[in-house]
Amino acid sequence: MSQFEQLYLDTAFLEPSGANFEVNLEFVVFQVSKRDLKVLTLPAGHSPFEGDLSLPMRRLGMEGLNSTGHTYISQELGIDSLVHLEQITAYTGSKKNSPVRQLNMLLLGLAGRIPKATRRQRGSFTPLTEISSGLGSMSTHDQHMILLAREFLSSLIQNTTVATLLCPEQFTLGTLRRVYECVWDTPLDNANFRRKILGTDGFVEFVSKAKQQNKQGRPSHLYKSGSLDKLNPSFQRPPFST
Amino acid sequence: MSQFEQLYLDTAFLEPSGANFEVNLEFVVFQVSKRDLKVLTLPAGHSPFEGDLSLPMRRLGMEGLNSTGHTYISQELGIDSLVHLEQITAYTGSKKNSPVRQLNMLLLGLAGRIPKATRRQRGSFTPLTEISSGLGSMSTHDQHMILLAREFLSSLIQNTTVATLLCPEQFTLGTLRRVYECVWDTPLDNANFRRKILGTDGFVEFVSKAKQQNKQGRPSHLYKSGSLDKLNPSFQRPPFST
Repeated sequence: MSQFEQLYLDTAFLEPSGANFEVNLEFVVFQVSKRDLKVLTLPAGHSPFEGDLSLPMRRLGMEGLNSTGHTYISQELGIDSLVHLEQITAYTGSKKNSPVRQLNMLLLGLAGRIPKATRRQRGSFTPLTEISSGLGSMSTHDQHMILLAREFLSSLIQNTTVATLLCPEQFTLGTLRRVYECVWDTPLDNANFRRKILGTDGFVEFVSKAKQQNKQGRPSHLYKSGSLDKLNPSFQRPPFST
Repeated sequence: MSQFEQLYLDTAFLEPSGANFEVNLEFVVFQVSKRDLKVLTLPAGHSPFEGDLSLPMRRLGMEGLNSTGHTYISQELGIDSLVHLEQITAYTGSKKNSPVRQLNMLLLGLAGRIPKATRRQRGSFTPLTEISSGLGSMSTHDQHMILLAREFLSSLIQNTTVATLLCPEQFTLGTLRRVYECVWDTPLDNANFRRKILGTDGFVEFVSKAKQQNKQGRPSHLYKSGSLDKLNPSFQRPPFST
């Protein structure tokens, strides 16, 4: 038996108790800028999808799941402001015309708001409105993943203070409110919102008065993220408007 | 080049874009009976762990992740009362002395309370107190997974009505309270508990008065699960007692 023959037989023999899965990480990385909820997209390279947008995806290799996720987004795609990465769900599937099974892990990422993207950034943050209106074409699968991730994020900002990470380092309550409004896609009452935030110890921390004045001619107050993580009671999300 | 040589080269060449993972599902299936939180265990078969307990674990094959989980627990292990199965988290690792990478998915299962286990049931529900006291020996890894799953369940019953699934089909509020007490490992005030449950529309639904009388000589009321899923505001979990 040749060396190759032995090696092949070893490989074939190992298969039933060996590796049969390819594991991929799919990323929905959200960013809020001004009044837009945006998602990190890459150009979908292959014909017939040239010109389309796609979600970032990375095959899992020798590194761990979470470290691969961080490294891919921060270093390979050059997103400097990744502040949160969390598993949403995993699902299995098969490749067309291949015996290889696939396990895909959907991850939620949050990118903070930074003044300007660095040069080394690949991909771009595309407003969800552009995707839903068909301006940026994207596969049904990717659009479905964005819906799942947005629903996950909607619950997350109900139960935690993570929305503050989608603000600049120092922010007004108006800025924080617009994050909630963008993610939930619904307007919120300003007075109720202020009462909820300021009435929850540790949600935000007062920093200083802003230099700019607000519409009422008073200087806005600037805040930063507080020490609180989980909200209890959770933030009441308004019912969907029809 | 021989046929085997070609096959081996094909295999080797495919590897970088082929399967390199073995995917395993690990299960922490909880059941509450009377005043005990229990977890589904199997005998750890292999020497030197003979006599030890282990968590159920199943390698993922051609079937999907969730259907494999349900089939394994319900049919292969014969647990008739599985009422809930949910992904907790996934993590990666390597096998000793093997190039095969592993992705393990930890799943939370809940088993309802049934009068008697059927004959076809494999494994048994072991009280957590037996494991923590060292009566039932278990690997550090499995004990860690149980801790993770219990913490996950603790949050879940804060934010959802899923605790009712751990009761018999019809139950008193005392029974439901003992589920919360078991999972959180802390006593709860009876009057506050009743107020919270009965004050939340759809948490439970009144069925009838029980035949037995309670300590005060009044018949207990029997309830079943209501239509509500998520709790808002969430159920306040008491701080850990020291």
